[in-house]
Amino acid sequence: MIRVALDAMGGDHAPQAEVEGALAALALLPNVVVQLVGQVQVIESELARHPGADRSRIEVVAATEVIGMAEQPLAAVRKKPDSSVVVGLALQKEGKSDAFVSAGNTGAVLAASTILLGIHPGVDRATVATPFPTADLPVMVLDGGANVDCSAKELVGFARLGSVYARDVLGRNRPLVGLLNIGEEDGKGNAITRQAHKLLKQVAGINYIGNIEGRDILAGHSKHGHVDVVVTDGFVGNIVLKFYESVARLILRLVKRNAPDILERTDVQEVFRVLDYAEYGGAPLLGVRGVSIICHGSSGSTAIKNALRVAAQMVETGLNQHIAAEFAAGDAPAA
Amino acid sequence: MIRVALDAMGGDHAPQAEVEGALAALALLPNVVVQLVGQVQVIESELARHPGADRSRIEVVAATEVIGMAEQPLAAVRKKPDSSVVVGLALQKEGKSDAFVSAGNTGAVLAASTILLGIHPGVDRATVATPFPTADLPVMVLDGGANVDCSAKELVGFARLGSVYARDVLGRNRPLVGLLNIGEEDGKGNAITRQAHKLLKQVAGINYIGNIEGRDILAGHSKHGHVDVVVTDGFVGNIVLKFYESVARLILRLVKRNAPDILERTDVQEVFRVLDYAEYGGAPLLGVRGVSIICHGSSGSTAIKNALRVAAQMVETGLNQHIAAEFAAGDAPAA
Repeated sequence: MIRVALDAMGGDHAPQAEVEGALAALALLPNVVVQLVGQVQVIESELARHPGADRSRIEVVAATEVIGMAEQPLAAVRKKPDSSVVVGLALQKEGKSDAFVSAGNTGAVLAASTILLGIHPGVDRATVATPFPTADLPVMVLDGGANVDCSAKELVGFARLGSVYARDVLGRNRPLVGLLNIGEEDGKGNAITRQAHKLLKQVAGINYIGNIEGRDILAGHSKHGHVDVVVTDGFVGNIVLKFYESVARLILRLVKRNAPDILERTDVQEVFRVLDYAEYGGAPLLGVRGVSIICHGSSGSTAIKNALRVAAQMVETGLNQHIAAEFAAGDAPAA
Repeated sequence: MIRVALDAMGGDHAPQAEVEGALAALALLPNVVVQLVGQVQVIESELARHPGADRSRIEVVAATEVIGMAEQPLAAVRKKPDSSVVVGLALQKEGKSDAFVSAGNTGAVLAASTILLGIHPGVDRATVATPFPTADLPVMVLDGGANVDCSAKELVGFARLGSVYARDVLGRNRPLVGLLNIGEEDGKGNAITRQAHKLLKQVAGINYIGNIEGRDILAGHSKHGHVDVVVTDGFVGNIVLKFYESVARLILRLVKRNAPDILERTDVQEVFRVLDYAEYGGAPLLGVRGVSIICHGSSGSTAIKNALRVAAQMVETGLNQHIAAEFAAGDAPAA
């Protein structure tokens, strides 16, 4: 059995979305136990709304405190040792859980994950890998906002972490890595990207296709073929991520203004569904010694269900052992 | 009469799109003369395809050389003094023209504009202001890719240039300026944006609303109200710009796959038209002593027509005199 701890108190729609998402995931995944972490009474009243639910693979783990969405992350983690975030991750540290999922305060989940789980030897910094919907398969963009300023060496680390994830969880046999830049030629970009481009060309064990441009992220197929992993610092990654979220809203606003009736058609709804992050199950934090997935604060039950599925997959495929092995070899210079 | 020089040889659809765009602009703008710059025979054969066209406000200016889209910009400008780009801008320098428009090699237009027109005293660097379509009015993002690494002081310069442009050309009485960042709070972002945020709060003469996030660019209305001018370095600006262009293509691909029939409806076509950069008339280069507009390489006649319209507007409103006055006062510290 894979034990996934779920922060039942985090996110805008907690605990309803969390409990519903957990029940949906359990119906889908016979080898998973969900550990609902939070205030017992709150969780139990929500569970009581689903009287027919099979409780055999649900555990309720008490955590009396809640970290708010606006709290200063590091201070909150330190001040609230009995919060759902800290308790949920501590379970994993103590060997009583295999993975953690939260739609709560992103910074707090990041800080607590790094502090409690630690970082794999050889990994410089943990990174948030964010899935970007495309017309075909999602593309992983990392870093998604955890690391604002990054060295070229850290970007190389993101490329390696993203490659292992794309292989293990997304099933890409030979994941292709691109460096987000403003042109494809050597020498394009700022000082860090120019240096990262040089380093990435020399790293063994990843399939580096070179610099890619903003338009290549979603293209599915760039000049070099499709891309699976897009490497950038957390400043650019976070801006592009949030911008992308807003574009779907803009198009929806334009359609509502110009041709509202088409939104009643299921084939048109499907277009907007593809652009919906909820389908992709949150952003895994890669590089920590364990499994931690950060969901959007606005996550509904579908997003939570999918995040639980991805968490189980990360455990099942041995992602952590593969990351440990990849980085134990050191800086992986060219063979 | 406002004399606008148009590079008849630049862009993927030259000279056809250029000549058609010029004729469309002339029909619209009675006070404009278009100077078609390029190889006379090529231009004349294209003009010959429009036998009914009124030639009274069309001049053909000979330039024997053409700078290719893939040529190294600075080298090309130096090696080809009789290219359409250099000749077109030299006209303006010599007082024989008021503005220049080109869909050719962006880097070459940038380099030649800076060299031939020069920079206004007090301006640190010229910047490309790119219009982003939104559900309502376009937002200007600068820098769009001309300046990869920018100091905080240079970002402040972009804010001031963008504000004058938004007032003069977009008719925003009190243009609101946002700094593109990864959070709204003070202290968010990398070292440069943190410093720029501090400086922008102190600058007189601009309406700074603070840090904005990727999702606020198109929102029309951020937490603080709408934004007219988005300030960022050319690395981020260029990546977000190209990413945006690709999103419309992605949605089109998804609609074609799921509900192709709706694309035959004019109200749905209107949605995609709103997202089309061609409507917005190219990206003005701000800070140079003159008027220079850079169009997308793929510009069709509509994009060219609109760029000519914007060029005329920049001349008519006295944008350059206003920029000169704004920057003559120095660094414009808080009053």
